[in-house]
Amino acid sequence: MGFEQNIRKVEPYVAGEQPKNPGVIKLNTNECPYPPSPLVKEAEGKIDYEKLRLYPDMNAEKLVDALAEYYQVKPSQVFVGVGSDDVLSMAFLTFFNGSLPVLFPDITYSFYDVWADLYRIPYKTCPLTEDFHIRKEDYLVPNGGIIFPNPNAPTGVLEEVSMIEEIIRANQDVVVIIDEAYIDFGGESVLPLIDKYENLLVVQTFSKSRAMAGMRIGYAMGNEKLIRYLKDAKFSFNSYTMNLPSIEMGTAAVKDDAYFKETTGKIIATRERVKKEMKKLGFFFTDSMSNFLFAGHENVPAGELFRALKENDIYVRYWNKDRISNRLRITIGTDEQMDRFLEFLRSYLNN
Amino acid sequence: MGFEQNIRKVEPYVAGEQPKNPGVIKLNTNECPYPPSPLVKEAEGKIDYEKLRLYPDMNAEKLVDALAEYYQVKPSQVFVGVGSDDVLSMAFLTFFNGSLPVLFPDITYSFYDVWADLYRIPYKTCPLTEDFHIRKEDYLVPNGGIIFPNPNAPTGVLEEVSMIEEIIRANQDVVVIIDEAYIDFGGESVLPLIDKYENLLVVQTFSKSRAMAGMRIGYAMGNEKLIRYLKDAKFSFNSYTMNLPSIEMGTAAVKDDAYFKETTGKIIATRERVKKEMKKLGFFFTDSMSNFLFAGHENVPAGELFRALKENDIYVRYWNKDRISNRLRITIGTDEQMDRFLEFLRSYLNN
Repeated sequence: MGFEQNIRKVEPYVAGEQPKNPGVIKLNTNECPYPPSPLVKEAEGKIDYEKLRLYPDMNAEKLVDALAEYYQVKPSQVFVGVGSDDVLSMAFLTFFNGSLPVLFPDITYSFYDVWADLYRIPYKTCPLTEDFHIRKEDYLVPNGGIIFPNPNAPTGVLEEVSMIEEIIRANQDVVVIIDEAYIDFGGESVLPLIDKYENLLVVQTFSKSRAMAGMRIGYAMGNEKLIRYLKDAKFSFNSYTMNLPSIEMGTAAVKDDAYFKETTGKIIATRERVKKEMKKLGFFFTDSMSNFLFAGHENVPAGELFRALKENDIYVRYWNKDRISNRLRITIGTDEQMDRFLEFLRSYLNN
Repeated sequence: MGFEQNIRKVEPYVAGEQPKNPGVIKLNTNECPYPPSPLVKEAEGKIDYEKLRLYPDMNAEKLVDALAEYYQVKPSQVFVGVGSDDVLSMAFLTFFNGSLPVLFPDITYSFYDVWADLYRIPYKTCPLTEDFHIRKEDYLVPNGGIIFPNPNAPTGVLEEVSMIEEIIRANQDVVVIIDEAYIDFGGESVLPLIDKYENLLVVQTFSKSRAMAGMRIGYAMGNEKLIRYLKDAKFSFNSYTMNLPSIEMGTAAVKDDAYFKETTGKIIATRERVKKEMKKLGFFFTDSMSNFLFAGHENVPAGELFRALKENDIYVRYWNKDRISNRLRITIGTDEQMDRFLEFLRSYLNN
């Protein structure tokens, strides 16, 4: 045994596959089917490689300023990190230090319980309703903090801002984190509430609507106090994380609002069209406001569909887990990709 | 008080200043005075920006393969992360889970105790000798793991491989981490020992000798078991951290060994020349084998010199801390920068 006795044993994470075969239609990891803004390419070409010898700006001021301007908040209200996973993990560490359990839904982003365990934070999951909505009452009890995605993942279900505001208002003794990774596909953000409620942190990402999963950029917005606590915690043990290309190329992405609106608009239009077509084929699903659908079929089990799709080089996501084992999570691709997906379903379901 | 009661309060880290004035001679954060390899620039121009929409390869296979080839180890013996801070922090989390204290020197890299506190790891610091060497005996006692930099920071003192091997051999029930951030400036690496001792992890970085502090790339090498544990821990709670530019540009840097040898050779030559000149000026210092000197003056207090240098736009590092309050840490810059530094000292000390 020897040195292995002191080693942390974990449940390794199983990510959506990243196939190397370029023929695959990849609808399994909620990436954007369109490239980032052309301004990102331009910024890439302008990175001063001689500057790489220096540590990057630990405050990533340029990127923070661009985000602050875009969202009309103060730079002191913005925190950036290496993907929203980094930002969320830091927020768990910083804000969830109480002895009461942190609350989040039973069906939700798979890293919440992992971070809670990692930082030894007590938590309790609250069951979603049968149609995958949050039951407000579950969050109106004493707790050590609250976090949920809106829209939720992997369900795509969007909650009303008014309902979320009730939860925030009733929980001013703890921090409430709304994880808006998928908010740009038709949802209404709670961001305007950060000036009204000191206990609200809104987290977003460049990985979906800004088509930059490969850059790893996430950010949080909240009142200055929360952001300062986050920064203090982060800088106390890892000061330099956002590299120079992330800062430069991320900044460029934020500046191209026209492109952002165009691509998110296209994804929303494709999603609504695919919903109609899938309904005709006998699928049921949540009214997803994300860049993915969460769908099951009235006759054919999801596991079977998942395997049939995969054999035909169409990758979607499937979890053989309680309550969601008869659902597929299908990322919205380009119109062409979705047409091939629908065509396969039509032919498969008619045989 | 409200929500602030549950918030983690920390001692914020004070980094070496990153002045915006381009006239400053910046000898305060141990960066490389030369730019990265021209191959890095070339790789930068070739990054496929369309691929940024996809998550990066979580295994960073291309970079791992390049490092494995360079160091003549197996890819399964290499772990990469966002700077060596990320790698070291992950190693603390993964390997130091015992109940006995982890051991490291009293004067050493300032993040070791921070990570230990963060992950609630018990630790004990072992005083260096008067001339800042490790006392081997201090590490031949029951412990939960061992870590020290070689050469040490901020002292620059290099320990013999044979002495380190004795420590590794005597501690096969725990993991021993040798932090070789500064090994490429004339030190002998313990890397060849990873096939002999299963409990040895060697950590290095692109931030110093490879002139890429702005990219944030660090790596660890050890036997396959250790590397698998590290990967499992990392992937379990943050799967995607190395972004596409880091993977591509990091790989390019590893491939230019001629440039690497040329720049590290220049830094070593400059360091040895500066040692001689500083000695003539009445400085005493360790025989640093790093890209910095750790020096005090026989008559003038270090704090005074620090302020005088700063007023003249020459930034070095100074800590007003027990045992090192009469020392400056001076990064080795270009010959031209060091000549201006020496010139200032000559004139200051003669007045």
